[in-house]
Amino acid sequence: MRSQKLSVNRAAHSLVQRLCDRADEFGVIVKEVESGATLIDAGINAKGGFTAGQIITEICLGGFGKAEILSETYGDLEFPSIFVYSDFPVISTLGSQFAGWQIKVGKYVAMGSGPARALSLKPKELYEKINYKDSADVSVLVLETSKEPPEEALTKISGECGVDSSNLFLVLVPTSSVAGSTQISGRIVETGLHKLTELGFDPKLVTHGCGYAPIAPVHPKLAHAMGRTNDAIIYAGTAYYTVSYDNDEELKKLLDRAPASASKSYGKPFMEIFKEANYDFYKIDPGLFAPAVFVVNNSKTGKTFRAGKIDIEVFKRSIKFQML
Amino acid sequence: MRSQKLSVNRAAHSLVQRLCDRADEFGVIVKEVESGATLIDAGINAKGGFTAGQIITEICLGGFGKAEILSETYGDLEFPSIFVYSDFPVISTLGSQFAGWQIKVGKYVAMGSGPARALSLKPKELYEKINYKDSADVSVLVLETSKEPPEEALTKISGECGVDSSNLFLVLVPTSSVAGSTQISGRIVETGLHKLTELGFDPKLVTHGCGYAPIAPVHPKLAHAMGRTNDAIIYAGTAYYTVSYDNDEELKKLLDRAPASASKSYGKPFMEIFKEANYDFYKIDPGLFAPAVFVVNNSKTGKTFRAGKIDIEVFKRSIKFQML
Amino acid sequence: MRSQKLSVNRAAHSLVQRLCDRADEFGVIVKEVESGATLIDAGINAKGGFTAGQIITEICLGGFGKAEILSETYGDLEFPSIFVYSDFPVISTLGSQFAGWQIKVGKYVAMGSGPARALSLKPKELYEKINYKDSADVSVLVLETSKEPPEEALTKISGECGVDSSNLFLVLVPTSSVAGSTQISGRIVETGLHKLTELGFDPKLVTHGCGYAPIAPVHPKLAHAMGRTNDAIIYAGTAYYTVSYDNDEELKKLLDRAPASASKSYGKPFMEIFKEANYDFYKIDPGLFAPAVFVVNNSKTGKTFRAGKIDIEVFKRSIKFQML
Repeated sequence: MRSQKLSVNRAAHSLVQRLCDRADEFGVIVKEVESGATLIDAGINAKGGFTAGQIITEICLGGFGKAEILSETYGDLEFPSIFVYSDFPVISTLGSQFAGWQIKVGKYVAMGSGPARALSLKPKELYEKINYKDSADVSVLVLETSKEPPEEALTKISGECGVDSSNLFLVLVPTSSVAGSTQISGRIVETGLHKLTELGFDPKLVTHGCGYAPIAPVHPKLAHAMGRTNDAIIYAGTAYYTVSYDNDEELKKLLDRAPASASKSYGKPFMEIFKEANYDFYKIDPGLFAPAVFVVNNSKTGKTFRAGKIDIEVFKRSIKFQML
Repeated sequence: MRSQKLSVNRAAHSLVQRLCDRADEFGVIVKEVESGATLIDAGINAKGGFTAGQIITEICLGGFGKAEILSETYGDLEFPSIFVYSDFPVISTLGSQFAGWQIKVGKYVAMGSGPARALSLKPKELYEKINYKDSADVSVLVLETSKEPPEEALTKISGECGVDSSNLFLVLVPTSSVAGSTQISGRIVETGLHKLTELGFDPKLVTHGCGYAPIAPVHPKLAHAMGRTNDAIIYAGTAYYTVSYDNDEELKKLLDRAPASASKSYGKPFMEIFKEANYDFYKIDPGLFAPAVFVVNNSKTGKTFRAGKIDIEVFKRSIKFQML
Repeated sequence: MRSQKLSVNRAAHSLVQRLCDRADEFGVIVKEVESGATLIDAGINAKGGFTAGQIITEICLGGFGKAEILSETYGDLEFPSIFVYSDFPVISTLGSQFAGWQIKVGKYVAMGSGPARALSLKPKELYEKINYKDSADVSVLVLETSKEPPEEALTKISGECGVDSSNLFLVLVPTSSVAGSTQISGRIVETGLHKLTELGFDPKLVTHGCGYAPIAPVHPKLAHAMGRTNDAIIYAGTAYYTVSYDNDEELKKLLDRAPASASKSYGKPFMEIFKEANYDFYKIDPGLFAPAVFVVNNSKTGKTFRAGKIDIEVFKRSIKFQML
């Protein structure tokens, strides 16, 4: 694995500093804990919001991607949405944003995502596949959680990242918060690239990416919040990639299988699927976790392919939408 | 009334400084008058434009909201538009952006909006309702006007704000200018929140807001300019709120009455309504001043409601639109 | 010709500095050549991308216009797009962004655009028409090229700009790169203003402008890349202008002839037109090079006119689009 000059932790750290410097404006609460680590609460006791969700998305992207809050149209409706783009989609999404590091210490469990993974190399196979690792003396991790992690977890994280506790920055964001909903939809490009990788495509052939999804209206219960934030991507998200690939026919076959609609589980709100699976996450087809629409431009042949479809009706059911 | 740590005047002041530092780029003319106050002309003798309108919107929002210029689609047409979002909608819109301070000195009359209101507490009842007041030694007021205010007005304003004249910053923007049109459409979230408040809803329950409206094409005459900038919000504006409320049924009843279309005056360009009211503003139903569409997400129940509709045909009549 | 206080070279230079300071993030390669000039490669050996394309657009606009990457809807499809706006459309587009300076030294040929033109005054008649020239000791030129220019070309450019070689900054961007495609679509406002000027309209009457176009998916071959980037504007671009003009009837007649669809060559992908012209650029009607749609607001009369139409089907053919 090659250690490259692009450091997702160093780039994200300068965003984290902005977040801390302007904590009031971003609606976050910053505190230094005993070990010296910095916790940034973006929705537990803090208010958070669109602005925090936007910068957390850019932090998750390791500073090598941009996120914008705007309104997009889906069928006959418009929703607040997040548009992201990255000219380093492999490093910024698979190498950083992907939620690939489960933090489990005692009873505390939370999914970790963001730059710190590129230091601890979680999961290792993925970093081997993308041939990237970071080297930095500062580490930034985003935890999707509604609880502060115990000190023991912090020690573990800084240890696995090989950084001093005082150089560890943890952003905490609940799934059920506006910031949480925003930063999950901000994973649209990552979700699609991950799916392509799972289908066997070499992610290093993807040179540029962008995409958008509605920011799911929030729900106070975790399972529901998780359901609708997934549905924002599965039923209403669009991802666009530039790839450099020799074989258009193979690419088309791959894209046939890429959108969420290619999954046998597709077609109803995630909560219903989850319920039918007796709330067992591992019974759900992992292929469901993909954007509704893929658009792929092959820079080697100039072709442009589009696969999948938006199904705003399922998204409306998911967010308990009612037209008055 | 609680004086909070979020200071809309201090935050807006740093935007004002950027506006002054880059006056050329924003197309504004900055001058210091005898009393020491700073006047920033964004459309009287100055050129102004979209860029000035964008930053003036953020200044009006007291630095706790963002504005973006972009294109949005309305039915079969697209228009340059402004999208705004705030994670502090109460303070930034009712507590700052709302045009609630009429400056009247001799023959000079202009509507004042923006952060300075949170020092002079205009109108006081509204500040009591939102439980906010600012405390700052700098004051920023935006005047919708096509004339420079007399020194006497400046003295009055700085006096009522309790700041030194040299710390008073006035942004002047005519309704008929591009900057003016832009910053009026930038009031979409404020207009909706004000309407909800007028209908009896406690604005403090609104935690996050965003929205967009077309930037009305300009008209040289004040009454027409006022008419079409109103119509941009009334017939084509969409506001989105996250609220924290216990009773969905009450919320739905409230939302039924919220959109502009709930007003008996609704249905034709504002100028026609104004004419029929014999140009007497106070004969017009104040309920008309509301976004065309409300979308509300209740964070307590997870429900999402939508009320109202876009009527782009009326907006087209309003802006004397002709398809060639 | 008046030398004005707005210096497109000085303003663009500060953007160039940002581009160089964050070369990694923008995916560009910066090098100083023997003569002391700085070359910024945004797509030859460098990766470039949307981010580079965005800032190159702002550089081309001489720092007096903004560009945003986002998604826009065209008929039933959405594409990554670039939205630009300028409150100084004459200086920033005709006076800077327009590709009006052909650099030809020995076998090296490339189209030059951007601020440097306002020093070398290429073409002179256009600068006389807009009554602008820059005066600066730094010079910024953007070359649409896939080859580094020879030292001789640099000497020529700095000589014609009257700046020291060490103060010359050249941005190199191939048409077939993502950055190239992005910055060409970023010429939407310029293309429309140029067409209006060619039709005899005094560009100085245009006070504000904005617009957007899809970012054409890339094609590795120059002719194809050129074809589809043209088509993004011709078949899918929308430009919006505020003008100050006395005669609406004349304005309407002008606008009838303004959109690309008014050209006899209109109706098929540019590559097909080019082929039918035996690859002789000068046999193609120059009137074809115009936005698909013009929307014009006359600030003197308040009227708003729209001419032209989007034809997404031709654009789809152009980009070899296939729905899977």
